[in-house]
Amino acid sequence: MIYDLIIIGGGPAGISAGIYASRQRMKTLLISKEFGGQMAKKATEVCNYLGFPRIKGPELIKKFAEHLKTQEFIETKMAEIRKIEKNGDSFSVVTTENEKLSGSSIIIATGADPRPLEVSGEKEFIGRGISYCVTCDGPIFKNKSIAIIGGGNAGFEAGIFMTNYASKVYILECGPEMKADPDNQEEARKLKKINVFVNAEVKEIKGDKTVKSLIYEDLKSKKRKVLAVQGVFVEIGAQPATSLAKGLVDFNERDEIKVGFETCQTKTPGLFAVGDANIGKYKQIITAAGEGCKAALAAYEYVRRQKRK
Amino acid sequence: MIYDLIIIGGGPAGISAGIYASRQRMKTLLISKEFGGQMAKKATEVCNYLGFPRIKGPELIKKFAEHLKTQEFIETKMAEIRKIEKNGDSFSVVTTENEKLSGSSIIIATGADPRPLEVSGEKEFIGRGISYCVTCDGPIFKNKSIAIIGGGNAGFEAGIFMTNYASKVYILECGPEMKADPDNQEEARKLKKINVFVNAEVKEIKGDKTVKSLIYEDLKSKKRKVLAVQGVFVEIGAQPATSLAKGLVDFNERDEIKVGFETCQTKTPGLFAVGDANIGKYKQIITAAGEGCKAALAAYEYVRRQKRK
Repeated sequence: MIYDLIIIGGGPAGISAGIYASRQRMKTLLISKEFGGQMAKKATEVCNYLGFPRIKGPELIKKFAEHLKTQEFIETKMAEIRKIEKNGDSFSVVTTENEKLSGSSIIIATGADPRPLEVSGEKEFIGRGISYCVTCDGPIFKNKSIAIIGGGNAGFEAGIFMTNYASKVYILECGPEMKADPDNQEEARKLKKINVFVNAEVKEIKGDKTVKSLIYEDLKSKKRKVLAVQGVFVEIGAQPATSLAKGLVDFNERDEIKVGFETCQTKTPGLFAVGDANIGKYKQIITAAGEGCKAALAAYEYVRRQKRK
Repeated sequence: MIYDLIIIGGGPAGISAGIYASRQRMKTLLISKEFGGQMAKKATEVCNYLGFPRIKGPELIKKFAEHLKTQEFIETKMAEIRKIEKNGDSFSVVTTENEKLSGSSIIIATGADPRPLEVSGEKEFIGRGISYCVTCDGPIFKNKSIAIIGGGNAGFEAGIFMTNYASKVYILECGPEMKADPDNQEEARKLKKINVFVNAEVKEIKGDKTVKSLIYEDLKSKKRKVLAVQGVFVEIGAQPATSLAKGLVDFNERDEIKVGFETCQTKTPGLFAVGDANIGKYKQIITAAGEGCKAALAAYEYVRRQKRK
């Protein structure tokens, strides 16, 4: 059996693609290792997805999943894909359990995983003070001091959220200025529990059974400093989950897949990449959903052309 | 006073841009001659805007407008813009009442108007049987026979909707095959009130005080045929409302504004075009909203760079 379209990934981009593909009556399979992508783990409220002035990430993704369930022509499957292959006019995807599934077109909507800090102590203390997800692990740190690494939106949003639990929140940015939106910085400024440091490069995480402190270098004074913290959340961006497409697409220096934005098609006809997996500059829920739609409609045209051949 | 950003248009693209711009704390003005764009007039239910499995167009746009109202940094103004001018580093927009407003950046989100049929009798019978909006005028044709001109999605959706009122619905397409999505065609096939004709080129609308008949040529048999109808809805696509940008942007052959899709910027830095006003192939609510977001974030970066100069 060859599907008209296989969508890899169950975040906003993949779900939006699934809705559009099914409405085009394409025989569609959506494969994902988990539903909801990063959004399902998002702690702070989503305030910028048009139509929902304020909603929690997991609630919004539940609405998306319910929307998908109303569609007739879509199957879903829980699995992780490790490889995409091109065989003549169609594609195969291979799961980590070596199952092979075939499709006339493919949309990569695999999103991105948190980027690790890569300092001494990080790996050692994962689950024992080091975390990449405030929603998942935030409540553990009630009345503790914690550090957020990363001065972008993710770092500030995580920091603001953590004031609900922690007694003290440090936000550390290694660059000379914070990169978060003015909105987020303004909100953080109003919260007394939050302290922010720029030019702060993390050097080591220390502890015994669990994290006890963080050592950073003040890049201006060149001095090493110690923060007594029981938790460290790493919020320094994401690593796109794109290695499955090697050989079929071009990447930029951040391993994001190069596409043309009108259709989100890669250099391989019939193979599309949307949302956090592609080179798009602005990675938002609404942009991911819009790209999912464009790719699904382009895949529909591609498959129709193929069938007419 | 110079706004950081002026958004022209109050449909999904403009509203989404407004939300993002305001969250970036840009001093933003959204100008529109009416709220909601084409969506506010959409008869059939919207089933493909991610998060809302089934909602009426006017209800969805109401949710969008309420979302915009939660934003702190945005002003709205009801006016029609006839011209955009570039003055050195900033822009001016001129209303039809010759008011001039200035902004450091501009997003054109003016959408599109229905394209006229341009046949004899069309202008004469506007409001007396000829219409471009089934939501607005559909109920007038209760138990009447009506014709929909155009075999695309808009035509089929209008036709399906009109079975709620009309006793007979003809859908006429001048090309050799219907262009609507399979979903829409399938639904229409199930409805006995609907009759579809391809290769049917409308020649004339006739009547006395109101429409009485429509004359078309069957392009295959070359014969003229008459349909006794009391209403004609023209659904042959849209004409983008882009003339205000003349001199500052490049257009394609359909008067759509050329942009780069990563940021939706036109050839003039600081001037963006989103949604139905640009050359984008897939014109959906979700793609318009995604583009509005991209343009607002790009405008934010543009204005910051300008201020640093």
